[in-house]
Amino acid sequence: MTSSPLLTDLPAFGELQALASDLKSTSIQALFEREGNRAEAFVAQAAGLRLDYSKHLLDGAARARLLELGEQAQLPRKAQALLGGAEVNNTEGRPALHSLLRASSAPGLEDKFAEVVEARAQMRHWAGRINSGEQRGFSGAAITDVVNIGIGGSDLGPRLVTDALKPFQGDINCHYVANVDPADLQDTLLDLDPATTLFIICSKSFRTEETLTNGLAARAWLINAGAEVSDLDKHFLAITSNLAAAAEFGVSGDNCLPMWDWVGGRYSVWSAVGLSCAIALGWEHFEQFLDGAAAMDAHFASAPVADNLPMLMSLLEVWYCNGFGAGNHVVLPYDQGLARLPDFLQQLTMESNGKRVAADGSALDYDTGPVLWGSAGTMGQHSFHQLLHQGTRLCPVDFILPLTTHTGMAEQHQRLVANGLAQSRALLVGRTPDEARESLLARGLDAAEAERLAPHLAMPGNRPNSVISFAAVTPHSLGALIALYEHRTFCSGQLWGINSFDQWGVELGKEIGVDIFQRMAGEARTAPLDPATEALLAQWRQYRD
Amino acid sequence: MTSSPLLTDLPAFGELQALASDLKSTSIQALFEREGNRAEAFVAQAAGLRLDYSKHLLDGAARARLLELGEQAQLPRKAQALLGGAEVNNTEGRPALHSLLRASSAPGLEDKFAEVVEARAQMRHWAGRINSGEQRGFSGAAITDVVNIGIGGSDLGPRLVTDALKPFQGDINCHYVANVDPADLQDTLLDLDPATTLFIICSKSFRTEETLTNGLAARAWLINAGAEVSDLDKHFLAITSNLAAAAEFGVSGDNCLPMWDWVGGRYSVWSAVGLSCAIALGWEHFEQFLDGAAAMDAHFASAPVADNLPMLMSLLEVWYCNGFGAGNHVVLPYDQGLARLPDFLQQLTMESNGKRVAADGSALDYDTGPVLWGSAGTMGQHSFHQLLHQGTRLCPVDFILPLTTHTGMAEQHQRLVANGLAQSRALLVGRTPDEARESLLARGLDAAEAERLAPHLAMPGNRPNSVISFAAVTPHSLGALIALYEHRTFCSGQLWGINSFDQWGVELGKEIGVDIFQRMAGEARTAPLDPATEALLAQWRQYRD
Repeated sequence: MTSSPLLTDLPAFGELQALASDLKSTSIQALFEREGNRAEAFVAQAAGLRLDYSKHLLDGAARARLLELGEQAQLPRKAQALLGGAEVNNTEGRPALHSLLRASSAPGLEDKFAEVVEARAQMRHWAGRINSGEQRGFSGAAITDVVNIGIGGSDLGPRLVTDALKPFQGDINCHYVANVDPADLQDTLLDLDPATTLFIICSKSFRTEETLTNGLAARAWLINAGAEVSDLDKHFLAITSNLAAAAEFGVSGDNCLPMWDWVGGRYSVWSAVGLSCAIALGWEHFEQFLDGAAAMDAHFASAPVADNLPMLMSLLEVWYCNGFGAGNHVVLPYDQGLARLPDFLQQLTMESNGKRVAADGSALDYDTGPVLWGSAGTMGQHSFHQLLHQGTRLCPVDFILPLTTHTGMAEQHQRLVANGLAQSRALLVGRTPDEARESLLARGLDAAEAERLAPHLAMPGNRPNSVISFAAVTPHSLGALIALYEHRTFCSGQLWGINSFDQWGVELGKEIGVDIFQRMAGEARTAPLDPATEALLAQWRQYRD
Repeated sequence: MTSSPLLTDLPAFGELQALASDLKSTSIQALFEREGNRAEAFVAQAAGLRLDYSKHLLDGAARARLLELGEQAQLPRKAQALLGGAEVNNTEGRPALHSLLRASSAPGLEDKFAEVVEARAQMRHWAGRINSGEQRGFSGAAITDVVNIGIGGSDLGPRLVTDALKPFQGDINCHYVANVDPADLQDTLLDLDPATTLFIICSKSFRTEETLTNGLAARAWLINAGAEVSDLDKHFLAITSNLAAAAEFGVSGDNCLPMWDWVGGRYSVWSAVGLSCAIALGWEHFEQFLDGAAAMDAHFASAPVADNLPMLMSLLEVWYCNGFGAGNHVVLPYDQGLARLPDFLQQLTMESNGKRVAADGSALDYDTGPVLWGSAGTMGQHSFHQLLHQGTRLCPVDFILPLTTHTGMAEQHQRLVANGLAQSRALLVGRTPDEARESLLARGLDAAEAERLAPHLAMPGNRPNSVISFAAVTPHSLGALIALYEHRTFCSGQLWGINSFDQWGVELGKEIGVDIFQRMAGEARTAPLDPATEALLAQWRQYRD
């Protein structure tokens, strides 16, 4: 794959900056008046998801230029390259074929696809075996609980899917342990019975510090409870590409499922990394989850830029980051089951696009990936929404809005939807000082008091937001939603000219961590570290001793 | 209390901006060399917490000017005013007396303090009664589980404290329900027995939509399980100032604990709002939690600006927001129990300081509160740390670092501490392109490949961060830590000239939400809403029908 041009080299970019500068002082409400069909024209749909991007600081003319930017960056060709297995991860010399994991055929990629099909069969086997009660622990009792031990991409995806699809869950309870803090594992094991607990060790290298440490502690817990080393295969599966290390740990090859270097951790929930959710949901639901993502892949591959959800959302991201100086992006799922979506998207977007050099290694002189944050609505309304409505920062928002509930409590859920719509509208319309004054007078305040308080109640509005709405959180819609953000992330990386599939920035901290751990253990080092770190180590020693 | 001057009116401010501009290109490591005692001189301690702020883009001279800024803003006098009950919440004409809730005496505030003492006695009574098994449900069985129903300030604080102090927990399990999404309550009740479950309804007005809706659903769950209306007092407590509404719901006055208008929701965990954690922890531990906060109050009241933890942290916040254009602040607790600290701090800081007008209502022309985000370490290391290390955004970090563990697994915990220290150090030192090249050659890469990859491995370092370290997470240290951030928030508000204790910006969304809910219910409205909202309502109706 040829390397991408820089954002600033795209012909439309300069003009877009000028347009953004003009639109900063434009009222989105005025755009609705000027552009009568805005509510229909700024909507795109795919795979059951409806994206409403009408409430943005973007008029028809600017949109046309933004779409040109997408064309100039050759996003449709880049999508084909990604999905077709081109070497998009240039620093590591690999394709990024997470889309293959949900494909039903793969012309030109038959070898890899055969491996995927084989891994799916293994997942299906294990999900069936555990759900049927066939898999038994050291005492002969059937497995009731599965604990996934992994971190980052080996944790956030399956954890999100299991949480979000609770209404589809079967009888097996899945738990997640990630942190090297021993409290994480200890708290999780507190209510579990070793005889009926199965662990999935999820680590490509089988050497991830957190995962290996927790895995060894889990192993000791089982042995202490009476399991023999020969029983370990009854209680451990491994998702790894290091079969030798897994075998050394005590997991035989039959209990290992593969990870491939052409799937990045943060894009891997569709692979055997998702085994815990395949167990929790059952294989059919997991297939529907794959199908939802595949539907989004098909849309991404074929829809023109103007209708292409990932491309549109990516162009909006770049529009705000590089046209308006936005430093952050907010995701607000109005669904308690999706509460972990922002955590998942933090890794997906910030590990992918938190880069300062282009794919060819040259330094960039513009901003790349923003900080992504958020929480489940309505929680944030009683927390940080104050800043969204009245703060001084530009915070573009994505509302994620499932329109129905699985709980059977339709009327209560209606309140949730009403609140989501209300927040989106409040960000748009705001409240003028006059309206604020009227509102205060209507509450019975006297004129002087209303005058004094009106500036505090007034809200500028005009705060950009999208609404992604869909019928309900199902395996299919969740698959489509995650794939949407995956492709959005890729497109933004392409617009910025960066490689979204490496993560070199996390290495140094690991190396220093090993060094400090060894120093704590008393292993002599010649050179001292910086004096601040040495002082903290001294404080630590004081409490240890 | 006289209103605060604006930040830009403080004499030191202009010079500080110039200093910040100079320091942008300074190496913090060079500062360590130039200022030999930096590791000791940039440390302050209080209430068992040690703040290391040596790894900042701040030299001794700039610090001196920053401290002057604090003096010019009269932070010590403002602290006295806050703690002494001055009307710091000027728009609502109230003091903000959360410090009174943890005081052991209160000269000049005897009336309010008598109410606090009385409420403490009630909390102690209920915590004792429930923990002793004396409180029995409708079937005569003892209460085993407590569900706190509240949102925002009536949820985030007690939830954080209960999570963080799990090692101190007694036999009662406390659960938290906040979201109006019916899935939140439904999932929580799934494993609970109505006969042994007690609910705490936590809402100052007793009209908060989420809380009242969930409260009524909980009430129906009990009645369906066989409780009589006359049994409700066995299963419900209310924390409210609206006794009439509580009585109408079915909670008698004896079962109501007070909320006061001189305590803001996000500052209320020390009040009866904290009853659920007092039950979970037992009264003695809850008193230690209050004592920790009181120790921080005493420090805040008396320490000079140069030694005052809340003031120093607030000055650093303003330094980065208004001197360097930082738009966000990261909090990374290296402790799984503190995983919810960022959520809590989002409300505390963003609801307090996400404002665009001064306390007197005049528009501000500078930035106020930043976006606060973060997660428990080491989780983020496998997620967004890529952006912290190599992204293009300035993200000042607070590391929260307890040095020992309650788990008994000291060696594993040592890995957690090592990782926290390593991340702080990696942000400081970074890695030069030469070092990156050496590292790649050492791995066996050939010269050309090392040359090609070096820019991707290189990290600029020089990324500012603080470390707040302490012996262990205990009721005392957690109380001190939360009070530290409370006072930091207040000081920043004072520096920005705003009122940190109101939240007018959340009202409009609630009003629009009620209107939209009524429209969904079919109640006729004359004027349509904006066409985007109307289109979403049409989509919702389509799925409902």
